[in-house]
Amino acid sequence: MSEQSVRVVVIGGGFGGLEAAKQLRDSTVKVTVCDRDNYHLFQPLLYQVATGGLAPGEIAVPIRRILRGQGNAEVLLQDIEAVDLDRREVVHATGRIPYDYLVVASGARHNYFGHEAWQSAAPGLKTLEEALDIRRRIYLAYEEAERLDDPEGLGGLLNFTVIGGGPTGVELAGAVAEIARRTLRRDFRRIDPASSRVILIEAGPRLLPTLPPDLSRYARATLEKMGVEVHIGTPVSDVSADGVRLGDAWIPSRTVIWAAGVAASPLGQGLGAPTDCAGRVEVLSDLSLPGHPEVFVVGDLALVRGADGHTLPSLAPVAMQEGRLAARNIVRRLGGQTTQPFHYHDRGALATIGRSAAVADIRGLRLTGFTAWLAWLFVHILYLIGFDNRMVVLWRWAIAYATFERADRLITEPRRLTRPGTSV
Amino acid sequence: MSEQSVRVVVIGGGFGGLEAAKQLRDSTVKVTVCDRDNYHLFQPLLYQVATGGLAPGEIAVPIRRILRGQGNAEVLLQDIEAVDLDRREVVHATGRIPYDYLVVASGARHNYFGHEAWQSAAPGLKTLEEALDIRRRIYLAYEEAERLDDPEGLGGLLNFTVIGGGPTGVELAGAVAEIARRTLRRDFRRIDPASSRVILIEAGPRLLPTLPPDLSRYARATLEKMGVEVHIGTPVSDVSADGVRLGDAWIPSRTVIWAAGVAASPLGQGLGAPTDCAGRVEVLSDLSLPGHPEVFVVGDLALVRGADGHTLPSLAPVAMQEGRLAARNIVRRLGGQTTQPFHYHDRGALATIGRSAAVADIRGLRLTGFTAWLAWLFVHILYLIGFDNRMVVLWRWAIAYATFERADRLITEPRRLTRPGTSV
Repeated sequence: MSEQSVRVVVIGGGFGGLEAAKQLRDSTVKVTVCDRDNYHLFQPLLYQVATGGLAPGEIAVPIRRILRGQGNAEVLLQDIEAVDLDRREVVHATGRIPYDYLVVASGARHNYFGHEAWQSAAPGLKTLEEALDIRRRIYLAYEEAERLDDPEGLGGLLNFTVIGGGPTGVELAGAVAEIARRTLRRDFRRIDPASSRVILIEAGPRLLPTLPPDLSRYARATLEKMGVEVHIGTPVSDVSADGVRLGDAWIPSRTVIWAAGVAASPLGQGLGAPTDCAGRVEVLSDLSLPGHPEVFVVGDLALVRGADGHTLPSLAPVAMQEGRLAARNIVRRLGGQTTQPFHYHDRGALATIGRSAAVADIRGLRLTGFTAWLAWLFVHILYLIGFDNRMVVLWRWAIAYATFERADRLITEPRRLTRPGTSV
Repeated sequence: MSEQSVRVVVIGGGFGGLEAAKQLRDSTVKVTVCDRDNYHLFQPLLYQVATGGLAPGEIAVPIRRILRGQGNAEVLLQDIEAVDLDRREVVHATGRIPYDYLVVASGARHNYFGHEAWQSAAPGLKTLEEALDIRRRIYLAYEEAERLDDPEGLGGLLNFTVIGGGPTGVELAGAVAEIARRTLRRDFRRIDPASSRVILIEAGPRLLPTLPPDLSRYARATLEKMGVEVHIGTPVSDVSADGVRLGDAWIPSRTVIWAAGVAASPLGQGLGAPTDCAGRVEVLSDLSLPGHPEVFVVGDLALVRGADGHTLPSLAPVAMQEGRLAARNIVRRLGGQTTQPFHYHDRGALATIGRSAAVADIRGLRLTGFTAWLAWLFVHILYLIGFDNRMVVLWRWAIAYATFERADRLITEPRRLTRPGTSV
């Protein structure tokens, strides 16, 4: 097989898939990146879209714009529904695309752990559409409260519950508390936004379980100082449009956000390899699928263990490094070399809590407060794609730092898309 | 009636309503602004959202943020459905709001002139949701073309038709042509975006009919130089999902945008006053409703004649001046003074065509090309609300000027809001 004719299909334009495609830049293979969205989403900042701090376009860039200069790469807006391992084709609604090598990087979705009925009441935060839905719910709650004739009828309207104490849950709870106490402080006449309750629920023993315990304690203390009620160690037993049940207690809450768990993309189920309880695919040490050396699985869909035997977390750096190795292993195989195993270079973990408050664990160096927040800010600006977006996000953050304003708190309603015209 | 207890209700937070509310800043009346959106939309730049140049949050600001510092003003997110003139109440889905004075500034919608069936195939551009829908249609057309296996099957996929040769139609056609010829130039591998056809249709004898004829000629020549096919003097006789019929010719076109006419808000029909063919309400010279000196109608909903007897156009400056006069007349009436008639101070009209190309008619001074474009840019930045938005828009425009990039060309799909979670 001449290298010219080799076609590498990449499913997913997230961190893993995009890095795989870019790594093949100097190869003579032909790369086809398929994604159901036309943009690469910078998911670590998605919570800022959900809370109105940033606009969608500031954290998402068209995939074809990113790969514009890479002549051997093409981008197709296709939702891949299955992989036909025998015929070496990926399958979409209207056809098939053949591959010689395949990189599956289709990521993860929410996991309601069997309680799918909770989804409509407690949306998760994985897509831009979901972020805008959550933004709408948060700001609409205040609008509805303001227009109530009887302030006694508030119910759980100004109670906001975040389920899940990982980085996303902590970031969301902190941002919602800041909206209530600072952003909206002077915006309403009949209600007092500062009277809102913000509730963060974590079923496990501590917040931010992948970080050291002292950072978890700092995060909890900081959130409580910001007015967030933190509940640890009790899972929710019910979620409805009116609130959540936590042990014996019923917490009325009109706005509930699900940040409690992810499940790997369903594409993983069709790959014929064992999967873990979250649907992640067990791959070989070189990230290839057992029995299919031409198929690689990377990112949130792959179950990969670190040097200490622990499963690597669902983080952008893990996915990016995996994507690059998968691409390098494709090139090695084409050159007749043996593939290399994956080694994760852990540069640390960060989580932000609020203005000037974050936690960081950088190779054992533990930072909190303003220093950690600056580190968080620097890293996120650095990895954001697009010079123009970096400038705009920095500007938005500077304004937010100075004024507590949130730039994009529009309530847009997809359901109201078509307004009847008026004939007169 | 003591002035303290006087309640002024303003329907609509557009240019007219917002100026009326702000004008009452130093009065002791209580102002209630009702709008069905939580934001004021800077409609003159909406076409830039529809073509991916600006993000929604960059041209829309929460109304309650604008009125935050005005202690006598409150904002209610309410879709007002009717006015009960006898009881002096405005009516919404769940209740009524009493008023002593009323400013009706509910604006206009599209007018399909009896062809309501055309709306789904040819959306208009009045709301943010519609702008995002049009953006999705434009960029999705290219994605669909790229993934076609048979390039012969393109049909009208890369034909873009704009119906209506007023400022919005001209701006849209110019922007779509720039997307095709410049923005997307290097983004695709299988199709050539530059092969797109952009068609602008105006039923009347010339483009930009409210501007002097020489500016119309300049606009047409510039658009044609940009590759836009301009059809003048023939109305479309049919619009479907596949194209438009123009006289005897059928133009296949998957993307059609309606910029051909507006109809006043249906609230105007219930005010008991005569309306013109576009549903605009004939008001007295002081902008009050005949027989109801406590009700004022301003903006696109009002039929007001200028000094020359011509109807004033649907422009932001007209609405703003009307809103201010209505507010001043309320104050005069409260003070026992007679009201004043409306006189429009015409500062000129501008329309942009593309990069470095615009037309301007400023008190008889006619500008074209780069000078007019700079004037257009200056005026729009000046009137945009919010210092942070002004900076971001200037930055976006600088980047666009240098690179032809459009910052926010995401295809977001409201219909796909809820993605099924995966249980494993």
